[in-house]
Amino acid sequence: MRLSPAISELIRALRTLPGVGPKSAQRMAFQILERQREGGLQLSQALADAIARVGHCDVCRTLTEQAVCELCQDEARRGSGLLCIVETPADVLAIEQTGQYQGCYFVLMGHLSPLDGIGPEDIGLDKLAERISTEAISEIILATNPTIEGEATAHYIAELARQHDIATSRIAHGVPVGGELEYVDQATLGHAFSGRKRVQFD
Amino acid sequence: MRLSPAISELIRALRTLPGVGPKSAQRMAFQILERQREGGLQLSQALADAIARVGHCDVCRTLTEQAVCELCQDEARRGSGLLCIVETPADVLAIEQTGQYQGCYFVLMGHLSPLDGIGPEDIGLDKLAERISTEAISEIILATNPTIEGEATAHYIAELARQHDIATSRIAHGVPVGGELEYVDQATLGHAFSGRKRVQFD
Repeated sequence: MRLSPAISELIRALRTLPGVGPKSAQRMAFQILERQREGGLQLSQALADAIARVGHCDVCRTLTEQAVCELCQDEARRGSGLLCIVETPADVLAIEQTGQYQGCYFVLMGHLSPLDGIGPEDIGLDKLAERISTEAISEIILATNPTIEGEATAHYIAELARQHDIATSRIAHGVPVGGELEYVDQATLGHAFSGRKRVQFD
Repeated sequence: MRLSPAISELIRALRTLPGVGPKSAQRMAFQILERQREGGLQLSQALADAIARVGHCDVCRTLTEQAVCELCQDEARRGSGLLCIVETPADVLAIEQTGQYQGCYFVLMGHLSPLDGIGPEDIGLDKLAERISTEAISEIILATNPTIEGEATAHYIAELARQHDIATSRIAHGVPVGGELEYVDQATLGHAFSGRKRVQFD
């Protein structure tokens, strides 16, 4: 049985969403057409709007509707001298939610991956080099993912920072808070030991 | 940290999709804006198109772009005299995929639910009564869901069919093929016993 073309096309289009397979896409399409036509129209409009209006921040490359994003406009953050390097805008959001960091960001929108043809310019490292040489940055915090590509990218940026004599740090890797040692993988536990901190008595 | 309004609105709109929570919606929004803008525009267009063009079949009430859907236009099916009653268009699709049934359908687009104010007219039973009295139907197959509401709806339609002297059957309930008895619930196993069939020797 063939579904009518507009429904088939909707199911196909829904599958471009991450984590949506054929069954979920079918369920979504029927639910929208049966019960949520208004929500569906709002989604259609929101998609078109966001795609038309959202671009990259001129300063940190994150996704924003403005030329310069809110965080980069913040005087206090710019005066902090801290620059945190992350891979994606979602990472910025995750770090902001901790409330622990009050500096600026630089969003790579990816990581170095020579096999996929992604070189330093593709992740904006030319722009980062320019910022490092023109802005008063006291510390670069490398918060790329703890994957092979993320580590390689962090290493590359650390070299860049060293050429400009800027202190560079990597976020700590170790046992997640609330985790149990028994279920932590070897690499993480190794990092937790090598990165151990001496207990301080006041 | 506030996301830019267009991104927040997109995340909110994505949450109208079934099974999409705040985290998935955020992941979808970022993936579309970072890597799948073309796919996102296609989805926006497909949603608007489908919502504008897809309506209900005049004969069976399923979702279709045409006035009368493909299955209802099929002469062989109309001549079969079989009418299968299902709750949703997805049920039609599921039954068609078995390849076991070659008759017509009637899609209720829901089930009787007096507590939610859903009465016979809301699920098109007036239209069904009209079809029963005007068309040459030899058997009505009740394929509503085996839930309390589905059973009540099936019972109501069976009464309607009896008034017109039309044979009515309910799809079999029992142990799913490939299932293990140990894991089948009591109600299903009860149905499997009460609906047992005598083994036939040729």
